[in-house]
Amino acid sequence: MANNINLEDYIANVPDFPIPGIQFKDITPTLEDPEAFEAVINEMASKFDPNSFDKIIAADARGFLFGAPLAYKLHKGLVVSRKPGKLPRPGHSYSYSLEYGKNTMVIPEGSIKPGERVLLIDDLLATGGSAIAMVKLVEQSGGKAIGSIFYVELVDLKGREPLEKAGVPVESILTFHGE
Amino acid sequence: MANNINLEDYIANVPDFPIPGIQFKDITPTLEDPEAFEAVINEMASKFDPNSFDKIIAADARGFLFGAPLAYKLHKGLVVSRKPGKLPRPGHSYSYSLEYGKNTMVIPEGSIKPGERVLLIDDLLATGGSAIAMVKLVEQSGGKAIGSIFYVELVDLKGREPLEKAGVPVESILTFHGE
Repeated sequence: MANNINLEDYIANVPDFPIPGIQFKDITPTLEDPEAFEAVINEMASKFDPNSFDKIIAADARGFLFGAPLAYKLHKGLVVSRKPGKLPRPGHSYSYSLEYGKNTMVIPEGSIKPGERVLLIDDLLATGGSAIAMVKLVEQSGGKAIGSIFYVELVDLKGREPLEKAGVPVESILTFHGE
Repeated sequence: MANNINLEDYIANVPDFPIPGIQFKDITPTLEDPEAFEAVINEMASKFDPNSFDKIIAADARGFLFGAPLAYKLHKGLVVSRKPGKLPRPGHSYSYSLEYGKNTMVIPEGSIKPGERVLLIDDLLATGGSAIAMVKLVEQSGGKAIGSIFYVELVDLKGREPLEKAGVPVESILTFHGE
């Protein structure tokens, strides 16, 4: 890790949130430390050749925290994958099952052009529901998801499998087991 | 504006969203264009001396889109002001009236240390409710809000007034009248 920062020190483990049995990984300590945050963004930037994608899509809301700096750094357009009711214009939408519950994601029509190559960014990979939703939204728009990066991967929840099965390579900065 | 970009071309006006009578300013076209997004972040970075603040606080969720790149660029810690139920750890909370409704914001305890100087970032300044909530959260934490930057200011809604009255200078990148 750059500058000998141990990023695991910047994740707070919160038991039984938002429901009993879930070990929530709170990434806010990473954001609060400039060196840790910079290390994450710079490592994310190194995972895929910037010439291999045209845009970045990031998930509402914590995905924005990583996707926006990465889009700025790499000079790529940013597409926001939003929760329902937040997007004022016509959009593509896709519903999926969460680790705890159900959700829908929406992107603006026209935000991804046919043939555009898109990199997915989110803070956390659990069962992969929201990531697969983003893949579907990219495909509905005529684009192609060329890869995905997560700050934290909860390995035992196997969210990597549906993504790889959909042809989307997965990179994560930190992995946790036994959650 | 840098590179002769007219940022107003990257704002979509959506009438009667989320309720009749509100002219919603959709900032997603700005995000989708790398030159426009870069121009906004770079202009935000020029508004206050980086030595005059220690941290950036950004509002859930669209504030993250500007606060996170700015924190990355200026090498500052980022504090996320979240909606209720999203923050797993003990936090400071503050409730306020919205342009349309009521809301509460929460920040993690300890994310702002006593004496820290904090710059506020959000996408939009309307009546100023969420911005004042962030000022209160900074103060509850023992910090000081030294200034605020908004991508879009709806001038007629006078959100600037409560902020300036609270001693917090206001900068905006785009201003709209007659909304």
